[in-house]
Amino acid sequence: MDNPKTWEEIVSHKIKLRDQALHNYLVNDIDQRPPSVTNVEGRSRLASDPVVQKITDISSVPNLLKLLDEGKYTAEDVVRAYIKRAVVAHQLTNSITEVVFEDALKQARELDAHFKETGELKGPLHGIPVTLKDQFNIKGVDSTLGYVGRCFEPAAEDAVLVQILRNMGAVIVAKTNLPQSIMSHRLPYYGVAVSTEGQEHVPSSIGPMARDLETICYISRSLADSRPWDLDPRCSPLPWNETAFQEIQSRPMVIGLLVDDGVVKIHPPIERVLLALAEKLRAQGHEIVEWDTSDHLQYMQLMDRYYSADGFEDVIRDVTRAGEPFIPHVRSLISRGSAISVYQYWQLNKEKFELQKKHLSKWNSVRSPSGRPVDVLLSPVLPHTAVPHRALRWVGYTKVWNLLDYPAISFPIDEVRKGVDSIPDVPYSSRNPNDAWNWSQFDIDSMDGHPINLQVIGKRFEEEKVLGATTCIEKIWRAEN
Amino acid sequence: MDNPKTWEEIVSHKIKLRDQALHNYLVNDIDQRPPSVTNVEGRSRLASDPVVQKITDISSVPNLLKLLDEGKYTAEDVVRAYIKRAVVAHQLTNSITEVVFEDALKQARELDAHFKETGELKGPLHGIPVTLKDQFNIKGVDSTLGYVGRCFEPAAEDAVLVQILRNMGAVIVAKTNLPQSIMSHRLPYYGVAVSTEGQEHVPSSIGPMARDLETICYISRSLADSRPWDLDPRCSPLPWNETAFQEIQSRPMVIGLLVDDGVVKIHPPIERVLLALAEKLRAQGHEIVEWDTSDHLQYMQLMDRYYSADGFEDVIRDVTRAGEPFIPHVRSLISRGSAISVYQYWQLNKEKFELQKKHLSKWNSVRSPSGRPVDVLLSPVLPHTAVPHRALRWVGYTKVWNLLDYPAISFPIDEVRKGVDSIPDVPYSSRNPNDAWNWSQFDIDSMDGHPINLQVIGKRFEEEKVLGATTCIEKIWRAEN
Repeated sequence: MDNPKTWEEIVSHKIKLRDQALHNYLVNDIDQRPPSVTNVEGRSRLASDPVVQKITDISSVPNLLKLLDEGKYTAEDVVRAYIKRAVVAHQLTNSITEVVFEDALKQARELDAHFKETGELKGPLHGIPVTLKDQFNIKGVDSTLGYVGRCFEPAAEDAVLVQILRNMGAVIVAKTNLPQSIMSHRLPYYGVAVSTEGQEHVPSSIGPMARDLETICYISRSLADSRPWDLDPRCSPLPWNETAFQEIQSRPMVIGLLVDDGVVKIHPPIERVLLALAEKLRAQGHEIVEWDTSDHLQYMQLMDRYYSADGFEDVIRDVTRAGEPFIPHVRSLISRGSAISVYQYWQLNKEKFELQKKHLSKWNSVRSPSGRPVDVLLSPVLPHTAVPHRALRWVGYTKVWNLLDYPAISFPIDEVRKGVDSIPDVPYSSRNPNDAWNWSQFDIDSMDGHPINLQVIGKRFEEEKVLGATTCIEKIWRAEN
Repeated sequence: MDNPKTWEEIVSHKIKLRDQALHNYLVNDIDQRPPSVTNVEGRSRLASDPVVQKITDISSVPNLLKLLDEGKYTAEDVVRAYIKRAVVAHQLTNSITEVVFEDALKQARELDAHFKETGELKGPLHGIPVTLKDQFNIKGVDSTLGYVGRCFEPAAEDAVLVQILRNMGAVIVAKTNLPQSIMSHRLPYYGVAVSTEGQEHVPSSIGPMARDLETICYISRSLADSRPWDLDPRCSPLPWNETAFQEIQSRPMVIGLLVDDGVVKIHPPIERVLLALAEKLRAQGHEIVEWDTSDHLQYMQLMDRYYSADGFEDVIRDVTRAGEPFIPHVRSLISRGSAISVYQYWQLNKEKFELQKKHLSKWNSVRSPSGRPVDVLLSPVLPHTAVPHRALRWVGYTKVWNLLDYPAISFPIDEVRKGVDSIPDVPYSSRNPNDAWNWSQFDIDSMDGHPINLQVIGKRFEEEKVLGATTCIEKIWRAEN
């Protein structure tokens, strides 16, 4: 920085600028909104602004595009509505880190001019507002990853994914703290800052989040068909495979059912939903195979050894750059291991590759009662429903798929139901400290109404199969509920 | 080892066993064969055995398969013929490291039984003899990579590529010292031992070598269509793209012409052939674009930094295991750099990725005179023709494509022609020691008749385009020569 400042000064200046950019859009009834996490949509309503409410209630991106194409709404209408709604969500959750509202509105007006002139939408995401996790570079905007030392160092160019989204007509309105899900190696990572950048052992994953599955499928298809491999040298040249997406929906599936990873047992409401769903799938002619997870702890242990491979030098450098203190979580992290040598690191990679090969062999060897191979796995996402901030301890139900580089999609399916869900009446005999901790979190009263999510997982590069299977699974669940 | 032995004892026992396995197949007229490297086919002839000569003269694998399918030859005939011819080549070059003749003949007889019973070939490589570089694991056979310490530790299972080859009916007859070429990330590497295994930064590459291009295309197609991604988790699910293979052959190509990498200038005979070929391509309506290599030195410098990343711990461990001395080449290698930290290693990976991205952007931005993008590059393979053993110093014309993970195929196109090729009559003003060394190697008398090879290079995963373009280029060259 040209003018050296304390980290506190940097933070307060950064927050001040953000809040100024948000100021004109703030609502003043946040205190009157209900406190529960069970009804996010309800809490962020803008009853005072029916147009905003109407636009943001449109159920999917394809539906929204239809209305844009009919000229019913302009891109500016849509972008402004989503900005307003996003700010309410931000006021409830402190989710926005970078605000690019004015750029977004300018871009929306340009799209409207294009539409007026040509009568055609600019691309498959014309006028669709998008928020991005803070790690994606946007030209002229910071990518702080939460590090003070990265403030006020705007990116020199858009990340490849940002370029692609803009080419498709999408309008980026803000960057957020939110974690995202599904799809890596097929979507372009170039220009996406990550902690431990340069490591190639376990890629973090990029994927769309949306309110509905149809939109996820639509965006995945559009992104795959945008030829990201032309821009990012790490992408494989795999266009959207519509055949795979349809084929899985046209026949009885074979589903590997993963109920327990053998390390941390899931809470009763999640088990109730998972087993009920499996039963419904079976009733519709799909085959369910119990999935063996005896190797999962091994994957987690290998991942742990990776995390400390550089002795946390990357994290320490970023944290110490501006002189900010370590937060407790990071402080405890960096005490967990010292750096290994490059040779030892290569031995880890060999172990990883052995495990990947072993898992692929396992998957290929499993057969359903009728003798067919497994299409996808159905699994919990976490062993619990929502827990307080920073209380998350066990991510074994998802991290395994990062190590294996398998695509996964998580989706809400039901909620905790007091009265329906069983309450354990005998003390649980836990397997290990994480398992004991997880079980101690189970509280039917505070969790009543919390959403329950499940995930569908496929083999590497089988995103279309995963999305097709999930489409099918969701239909079956909804048809009877 | 159960019975500790000196490294000299291990080596002499290893050689003794190999030579015993070769013994029955040796010819006794090696001393009478001509010494030149210019006519390998002629030198390894087996005039005394007309059937062997006839079979091994069949021009391509597809032609050989046709004769097998017609029952004209048995798999045993073919395998026995190639074993005999291979032993002559071995006597001339000391190329065979592991001998599996008896297994190969047994497998050939099984294939013959299958053919007799069903009237059908077992697969697309039924009865085709194959040799593999020593790094490929074959169950029950050593993979020494030239290290004494790896002797007498046979592999527990076949490498994935070996499994696939066997499934297709190919018969592995021996492992060799020979380097191989083209195709990585699409062919399965699992079970292939390499030095610095576990590093993921610059994959060494796997690909077929054959006497003719038709065979290379046939084998590449067969391998891609064998679904290697079902067995190797690192392979992308890309079946053979026949459309890409044909399309490039059906229209004027745009060829990036790489004459000089800016570091080590090629010898006059190679330049003569390269420019003559470019002229012929132009005359046939193809467009030639001069390829900018100003960034190539950067790639080579980055590669050099990778080589010492582990302080050569991997190599040192293997060499010291049996107590063998370092050979001079390795001794000089390990003095070249000390280990870096994992963090520094990740920074190298970031640099590599930046360069990959930069190169992809460059490729995408270049346009031909008619405004079309570049299809493939045409380049020298080495700056010189054959040089004595261990005299190789500059591999900048090939190593760049390893770093970029681009497919490349090299092929013989002409030979050094004394009287035609210009002899520099003024002292060459060299750019650097490697360039000076290369120029000092040029000697028209000793090089007369040496084969000249060129290579065609494509973007990542564009193997089909590379093979299609090479097919087209070879036809044009041959039509007029």
